[in-house]
Amino acid sequence: MIYLDNAASTRIHDDVLDSMLPYLKEHYGNASSIHRYGRLAHRAIEKARRQIASLINADPSEILITSGGTESNNTVLRGIAQSDTCNQIITSLAEHDAVLEPCMRLAKTGMNIIYLKVDKLGAVNPSDLKDCISKNTCLVSIMFGNNEVGTIQRIPEIAKICNEQKIPFHTDAVQAVGKIPINVKELGIDLLSVSSHKLHGPKGIGALYIKDGIKIDPVMFGGGQEHGLRSGTENVANIVGFGKACEIAENNMAKNMSHMTKLCDLLVDKILHEIPKVTLNGDPKSRLPNNAHFTFLGVNGEDLIIKLDEHGIAASTGSACSVNTQKASHVLQAMGFSHEQITGSLRLTLCVFNNKQEIEQTVTLLKSIVQELRAVSPFKAKYSFDDV
Amino acid sequence: MIYLDNAASTRIHDDVLDSMLPYLKEHYGNASSIHRYGRLAHRAIEKARRQIASLINADPSEILITSGGTESNNTVLRGIAQSDTCNQIITSLAEHDAVLEPCMRLAKTGMNIIYLKVDKLGAVNPSDLKDCISKNTCLVSIMFGNNEVGTIQRIPEIAKICNEQKIPFHTDAVQAVGKIPINVKELGIDLLSVSSHKLHGPKGIGALYIKDGIKIDPVMFGGGQEHGLRSGTENVANIVGFGKACEIAENNMAKNMSHMTKLCDLLVDKILHEIPKVTLNGDPKSRLPNNAHFTFLGVNGEDLIIKLDEHGIAASTGSACSVNTQKASHVLQAMGFSHEQITGSLRLTLCVFNNKQEIEQTVTLLKSIVQELRAVSPFKAKYSFDDV
Repeated sequence: MIYLDNAASTRIHDDVLDSMLPYLKEHYGNASSIHRYGRLAHRAIEKARRQIASLINADPSEILITSGGTESNNTVLRGIAQSDTCNQIITSLAEHDAVLEPCMRLAKTGMNIIYLKVDKLGAVNPSDLKDCISKNTCLVSIMFGNNEVGTIQRIPEIAKICNEQKIPFHTDAVQAVGKIPINVKELGIDLLSVSSHKLHGPKGIGALYIKDGIKIDPVMFGGGQEHGLRSGTENVANIVGFGKACEIAENNMAKNMSHMTKLCDLLVDKILHEIPKVTLNGDPKSRLPNNAHFTFLGVNGEDLIIKLDEHGIAASTGSACSVNTQKASHVLQAMGFSHEQITGSLRLTLCVFNNKQEIEQTVTLLKSIVQELRAVSPFKAKYSFDDV
Repeated sequence: MIYLDNAASTRIHDDVLDSMLPYLKEHYGNASSIHRYGRLAHRAIEKARRQIASLINADPSEILITSGGTESNNTVLRGIAQSDTCNQIITSLAEHDAVLEPCMRLAKTGMNIIYLKVDKLGAVNPSDLKDCISKNTCLVSIMFGNNEVGTIQRIPEIAKICNEQKIPFHTDAVQAVGKIPINVKELGIDLLSVSSHKLHGPKGIGALYIKDGIKIDPVMFGGGQEHGLRSGTENVANIVGFGKACEIAENNMAKNMSHMTKLCDLLVDKILHEIPKVTLNGDPKSRLPNNAHFTFLGVNGEDLIIKLDEHGIAASTGSACSVNTQKASHVLQAMGFSHEQITGSLRLTLCVFNNKQEIEQTVTLLKSIVQELRAVSPFKAKYSFDDV
């Protein structure tokens, strides 16, 4: 199998699993227990917290451990909404559902949500934010790198606007952390969501960076773990694995970025040159190093991924999270894509474990599958696929 | 080491870990992806859901998978509070913080919370519930088996009262599931919280049984996983392990209960006979088969567990979850214990992996530690420990 759906989930790194195993075997204590089993678990969590913090240049005390990116985003949105008297949140139309859905929920309770539009590359224009931001704004939430088309937002400018207005700035960086260098202090980020399973760590664990001084109300109540901000017995093994994954990502950042960028460039170049009537979506320059998102005109993206799957290639049309609902991508809609352009989309997302041979095999196969599907396409006449 | 803190957390069963490993290695797909990696993960989750359901005689469609017992409890309390127009929740003073804290939070938003008292054995009197329940009640939440003193509540009577009044009945059964047979249909339970790591499964995963027809509003929004009730990429490996742990618990229920009951009876008998001025707390008959909770007069429970730890025995004074806050047990307070009785408490909780030799070693050691601590106790004169 050739796995090109790394934006959906990634393979756990061997060293990550090795780091987890002792906590799945003999070190099974509850981190709140005061005996040695408990102390051992507690120390392991604090080590992981340092590893997570280091990757984004945060202080360990600024890292809240959660059950994943979705919980991190929900915690920010509900936590800020609860803890403040203000009534306005600014976000964008291209956010992940884990931001948009909590926003829609808050809207029902009277919160005013402003959705910034994105351009045809999927980017928010910071000047739009400048126009909307006000004393009533209690939070700005703009994602770092888009999960579908890979576009990286102009985070430094967006953060600067928020910082100047003293409005907390949150970024859902689930797709970006571990793939590109992120320094929360330099960038002026106040809140940042991370997911372990997007960076070769285990599933079911994530973090929220909360800059010292930013107040968030807890959303899960109970035993008072995580300094009262997130109750529930700590998932020690997964936390340890998450920490290790962050450490590996940090130590190999430049090498991995270079590897993924080269492969991704090769993939994009080959597809654009060898297959006719295909476009690369998202920002061609300011994009995640592992994301390649295309529209193949006259082809149904779902047929494409089913065919690819039959031939041993795992790919996606867009966000895995919206597959169950079978709804058209709201990101591509926000970018102004036609229904036909949305239907023909394919997302290939790489990781450090992919190699050149896999990319070449994928292109060869994709070429023949697209040809095959276009031969029976209802749009056949429209695009004169016979020519190519 | 002798591990006697199984109410805090349990060792992962070897077969559970074996069942998880493929999902920590090669089967790393996102369960929402439509390619084979995704389908494999999805099928594994549905198998686990059936295993979890089977243990409590629920239908798999009635099992919501969460990040653990705390999230299950929070989901019930907030989900019910959100989705209904009623304004009263009835619970008890002996609940876990994962029920009490969300209740306190709801109280701040105007919810009327009634806390039923418990008797000196830690039991709620169902007639108290009958007196309090009204048309305004939207939820009754009474735990199954107490996490500190092990007392099992009169669940059939409590459920019957709720069922007659058509009020949803929730029970936090985190300590009971897998240790004693629980049949939600026969018992008339509407909502039930389970935690994987209390029954030899991995941490960071749990479930909420939601009887068909009971409406709960989601509390985590995003990609729409778990039929929209709990968004977030599924923690496949931990779900698989949780399912396996449930299957093992179900298949070995009678044998395990008998083993734990015998060991626990031996432990209680030996301690009560060999150590003077000690009482067994909680209901001596209607109790969890693995729980033994004592008060050693004139001894500080924390000194006791530190000494036990030094000698290789892991024990607890009470709930691990409240250790960080260093607060006196609200459960023992509700049972009418004096400060001195609370201070002298020790909880020993067993599991199927414990054996007779460990119990005998523990009692021998405990005897000498208690003697040693009492020799320097400020209460020495009061209890004339020199006599014994």
